[in-house]
Amino acid sequence: MNFGSDNQSGASPKVLQALVDANQGFTHGYGEDQYTQAAVNELKDVFDCDLEAFFVPTGTAANCLALSCLVQPWQTILCHPQAHIIQDENTAPELLTGGARLKAIPTSSPKISHSDFVHFLENQAKDAPHNSIAGALSLTQSTEYGQVYQPEEIATLTRIAHEHDIQVHMDGARFTNALAHLQCHPKEISWQAGVDVLCLGATKNGALTAETVIFFDKDKAATFEQRRKRAGHLISKGRLFGAQISSWLSDNHWIELATHANAMAQALSTRLTNNPRCRLIFPVEANEVFVILSNKKIQELREQGAEFYEWPSSELAPADQPNNAETLIRLVTSFQTTAQEVDQFCSILESNQT
Amino acid sequence: MNFGSDNQSGASPKVLQALVDANQGFTHGYGEDQYTQAAVNELKDVFDCDLEAFFVPTGTAANCLALSCLVQPWQTILCHPQAHIIQDENTAPELLTGGARLKAIPTSSPKISHSDFVHFLENQAKDAPHNSIAGALSLTQSTEYGQVYQPEEIATLTRIAHEHDIQVHMDGARFTNALAHLQCHPKEISWQAGVDVLCLGATKNGALTAETVIFFDKDKAATFEQRRKRAGHLISKGRLFGAQISSWLSDNHWIELATHANAMAQALSTRLTNNPRCRLIFPVEANEVFVILSNKKIQELREQGAEFYEWPSSELAPADQPNNAETLIRLVTSFQTTAQEVDQFCSILESNQT
Amino acid sequence: MNFGSDNQSGASPKVLQALVDANQGFTHGYGEDQYTQAAVNELKDVFDCDLEAFFVPTGTAANCLALSCLVQPWQTILCHPQAHIIQDENTAPELLTGGARLKAIPTSSPKISHSDFVHFLENQAKDAPHNSIAGALSLTQSTEYGQVYQPEEIATLTRIAHEHDIQVHMDGARFTNALAHLQCHPKEISWQAGVDVLCLGATKNGALTAETVIFFDKDKAATFEQRRKRAGHLISKGRLFGAQISSWLSDNHWIELATHANAMAQALSTRLTNNPRCRLIFPVEANEVFVILSNKKIQELREQGAEFYEWPSSELAPADQPNNAETLIRLVTSFQTTAQEVDQFCSILESNQT
Amino acid sequence: MNFGSDNQSGASPKVLQALVDANQGFTHGYGEDQYTQAAVNELKDVFDCDLEAFFVPTGTAANCLALSCLVQPWQTILCHPQAHIIQDENTAPELLTGGARLKAIPTSSPKISHSDFVHFLENQAKDAPHNSIAGALSLTQSTEYGQVYQPEEIATLTRIAHEHDIQVHMDGARFTNALAHLQCHPKEISWQAGVDVLCLGATKNGALTAETVIFFDKDKAATFEQRRKRAGHLISKGRLFGAQISSWLSDNHWIELATHANAMAQALSTRLTNNPRCRLIFPVEANEVFVILSNKKIQELREQGAEFYEWPSSELAPADQPNNAETLIRLVTSFQTTAQEVDQFCSILESNQT
Repeated sequence: MNFGSDNQSGASPKVLQALVDANQGFTHGYGEDQYTQAAVNELKDVFDCDLEAFFVPTGTAANCLALSCLVQPWQTILCHPQAHIIQDENTAPELLTGGARLKAIPTSSPKISHSDFVHFLENQAKDAPHNSIAGALSLTQSTEYGQVYQPEEIATLTRIAHEHDIQVHMDGARFTNALAHLQCHPKEISWQAGVDVLCLGATKNGALTAETVIFFDKDKAATFEQRRKRAGHLISKGRLFGAQISSWLSDNHWIELATHANAMAQALSTRLTNNPRCRLIFPVEANEVFVILSNKKIQELREQGAEFYEWPSSELAPADQPNNAETLIRLVTSFQTTAQEVDQFCSILESNQT
Repeated sequence: MNFGSDNQSGASPKVLQALVDANQGFTHGYGEDQYTQAAVNELKDVFDCDLEAFFVPTGTAANCLALSCLVQPWQTILCHPQAHIIQDENTAPELLTGGARLKAIPTSSPKISHSDFVHFLENQAKDAPHNSIAGALSLTQSTEYGQVYQPEEIATLTRIAHEHDIQVHMDGARFTNALAHLQCHPKEISWQAGVDVLCLGATKNGALTAETVIFFDKDKAATFEQRRKRAGHLISKGRLFGAQISSWLSDNHWIELATHANAMAQALSTRLTNNPRCRLIFPVEANEVFVILSNKKIQELREQGAEFYEWPSSELAPADQPNNAETLIRLVTSFQTTAQEVDQFCSILESNQT
Repeated sequence: MNFGSDNQSGASPKVLQALVDANQGFTHGYGEDQYTQAAVNELKDVFDCDLEAFFVPTGTAANCLALSCLVQPWQTILCHPQAHIIQDENTAPELLTGGARLKAIPTSSPKISHSDFVHFLENQAKDAPHNSIAGALSLTQSTEYGQVYQPEEIATLTRIAHEHDIQVHMDGARFTNALAHLQCHPKEISWQAGVDVLCLGATKNGALTAETVIFFDKDKAATFEQRRKRAGHLISKGRLFGAQISSWLSDNHWIELATHANAMAQALSTRLTNNPRCRLIFPVEANEVFVILSNKKIQELREQGAEFYEWPSSELAPADQPNNAETLIRLVTSFQTTAQEVDQFCSILESNQT
Repeated sequence: MNFGSDNQSGASPKVLQALVDANQGFTHGYGEDQYTQAAVNELKDVFDCDLEAFFVPTGTAANCLALSCLVQPWQTILCHPQAHIIQDENTAPELLTGGARLKAIPTSSPKISHSDFVHFLENQAKDAPHNSIAGALSLTQSTEYGQVYQPEEIATLTRIAHEHDIQVHMDGARFTNALAHLQCHPKEISWQAGVDVLCLGATKNGALTAETVIFFDKDKAATFEQRRKRAGHLISKGRLFGAQISSWLSDNHWIELATHANAMAQALSTRLTNNPRCRLIFPVEANEVFVILSNKKIQELREQGAEFYEWPSSELAPADQPNNAETLIRLVTSFQTTAQEVDQFCSILESNQT
């Protein structure tokens, strides 16, 4: 019963086989190989547009190198207070942008709302060169709380951003889970909705290690190769990324993996909603479930082998706060989660033992 | 006939199988997994000492993050004029050290000699804070020209370095080729010879993508985890590196791979030495061969499918320079190079066609 | 009637004369001169302790270089949401610390309270290396809103900070105004209260251009000289700073200048408090007055030659917000402000014209 | 007898008086004052062109901020092996450019020659993104060895540079000494000769502390204000720089000061040339004299109160090297050097005492 994180599973069998198949023979180094080229072509097909794409080993590298192409070192990057870039990537944004600043847009919602963004911009100090002024907006799709931005929500935010000379980055570590939830075309929540750069994560959804930075505006990609190299993120054996991404995208594999993960989260949600001992915090949309449980139940679950993380609750609304005998936990499902695991977990929760 | 680079092959079958085997089931993320732990233990065995080891995806990341633990941002890193860190890693050393400076020690030799180093230090301006003063020495083993430092050469250089408060880094992208040449214990050319940090490369010698930073002085490793994370080099699925390194080190596999690569370079060397059309530039010690050929022969080789790089000859002694109808080329062998390829290549060279 | 900023006046006559007197003859460069030494000695007398002191041209340089000695590039610096370092120094903190992060401690008060700080620390994510963890606290004395921390308030905050391995920086651009208000010994609000590094500003209070970074813990100063030089802040003619600081500190001159500036702010405060057209926002303690006026009065004041800045009111409590016909303004007094200017300004405010 | 450095004197009386005169009354801060504006206008007159000019406190700040506008962080800055930026500015170039690299063009001459530069460019590795490729050339006028580039020498170097997409920076810490030597118009050795950015030093030649960055191509200045602010180099009281530069430029004062300094160097040169105990190393052109003396004479000079620095001789041609009983010294003259000091110095040298 592993609900710790979607990065605790390995690669999907199809992706793993692609790695094995690509291992034979010689190729050119540093991305000048046929596997890399095939993956880029697959991305163009999938997103139905021309684009520039680059592969890097981690989500932190993808996000921060992408952002470094959007802002000057004296500008500010705006994001949600719980965004991965401001919470979980150490000071990588500062290092890789040459010193740009992260600022959270105050909000009481799990997504940045139109009015949150407008209110921030209206009150932003803009006296250059004294103030650092916003140059990029980063949206997370799906969010750290498992919520999914609708296409029109994204379009509204990107329109406002562009009116203020603010470029838009999307942290898509769980982009595919959002896509599976929305059942829309990938372009509808990326370039058609005004996203300038998408970091498309595969690692959490069936790849072993492979993240893609996609520039829909190719001009903005002009310096990426230099930035990737000087950050040490240009790997020599490009087949590692190329084979994974090609096989992951082809035949709708990526969508199928995320659809399964989301279905497992829905199964959890249904059982938890019907359980009076549980308090779900957000509607479950992608592959994450946030629920408040009694500390006793949490202990029992762990004793019986369940893995998950406790989550900070200080950002929750006062009415949602756990009491002293409760804790907020996060459950994450992945392509590898089974219905049996979900059932076993929920059965423990529903038992009368504690 | 691929002699382009030892990073143009895939993983060895044993390493690939280890990746496949490690793919099953859940593990903890970010290096908190059993594969990572096993690899670290294997390193302790192999080097016969306690140590701190960290895995990163590229040699550039390994070198520059290791160096960032040795020098302050206002210090200078000394290296050979042809060192990978000063020639081929863009400005990654500057980025990842926070702005430290690289300086080549002038030398006419393919290795830094004792007297080169002493002469440099005697003439180094040391008026702080005006001058940037040397804080680290980087040695490449084997060197970019395929030469191997003897244990006592390393020991002499590290002794002088430490007397001047200079820490010693070893770029071991081809460390195993040096080891196979010397047939000594790994400790004899690392910690016993005074090396503070070794970047042990596996990618060029049988891994898919896996580089290890080894601190023999554990105190110097204190900030490495923070530095690796903020550079975006902490991967979530640690099994990728752990499985590769464990399998690569176990049962002497790494040495066997390098021994084969070196033997192929020796086979090339023997045939080329006996061929009056070729001028070998350096004695062949590891897995690289530098040879001056006529431009016609180079064209013929390429037409028949040989791959290799032309190499800058400006650093060669005047007597060694190619004439106008000649070019210096570099041939690199790997674990995947076959005796048949060597024979085919040499046969073309020996033919009378051009 | 200039109430724009205390940096819009020149040097006090005494400080200017010291510059003229110091101009004769040769001295050694880069701070190796008698004027610099005399200023450091004067600082030791004034603060009644041993210390390390360094001079730089701007408050931004002082603050950011001081902070760079307190935090690692992967740590966070905490401050008030209106602190100069987070609002008005562009991204200098990021540049000069090598990429450390600024984070405002949420508060509804013009000073950071004990409970604000404790609440922040209790909810701070501390999972290294993922999170960036607080390494420094920056206090502004007097604050950007002209409020003054009492000695015991500082002592409480520094005690909590040190218990969490957090070093304490004080932005003292208007330290002397706080001192004049408290009428205490400088040591009571600096080292005795637990401050590790004080940036003592003279420029806003009678110097032409001179800021001092004072380390009470000399060990923390170990890298300052390197950092100052590589930021381009080591001036060659040290007499510029030495002569200013010596003359400014001697014979209580600095205190007298600030006492006058504060008295002028009090005079403004008294007249404004008695004027029903004005709404003072904070009690006036140092040399800044924040007041809400009608837009008509603001226009009238400007037409008659008054200079001052409008100030963002978004941070004010809802009850304090200006209405649509009003604006919050800031009035700053300096050693050069005259009682006549205050009277003239208040008379316009009190007139019935608008 | 101070020949230590031209930064060991104070300000010229005219410049000092301008500072005193500018001290009265209020001005706007951060360069929005009449003194700053007047200085920029004076620069336009003197250089006979439109331009953008910015003032900073040190030569290191001027050089490195100027260079940061010319190169990307992954590019290389070329300079003479003895250039101030590579020898004496710590790692400020790396910090302020965001990590660009300095590389000395090998040369045996005190100036970079046309052929030195061409030879470097022909052998430069240009395989992006692996290599860091030259983006700027920095020329020092007059050089660290007191040599002066002729207008046509500059024009040749800048032409080659621009053909290779290399921008040209001039370190003019002693630009006025070069101008006084050449007796040409300032534009002939700056924008007319192809210089993109000139750092014009006043501190070493009659100012107290004032350096100017002049962009002849205004587009290249676009980011300077942000860069200056975030490096902490935007001073609040702009009158400090404005008053100095205005008075220094007006009525040919800067040229007169440098003419005097140069004349004192010529006087030294004449006497030293005629003295068989001395070996002058370079022809004296500006205000620096390099001479090899016996160690005994050096001791005698010091005992009689002469100040000067010993200089590294490792860069000298073998024939020029001092023997074991000799040392190379540097003598620098300034606007404040007197004929009497020169005579006193030379008389000691000529005496038979040692």
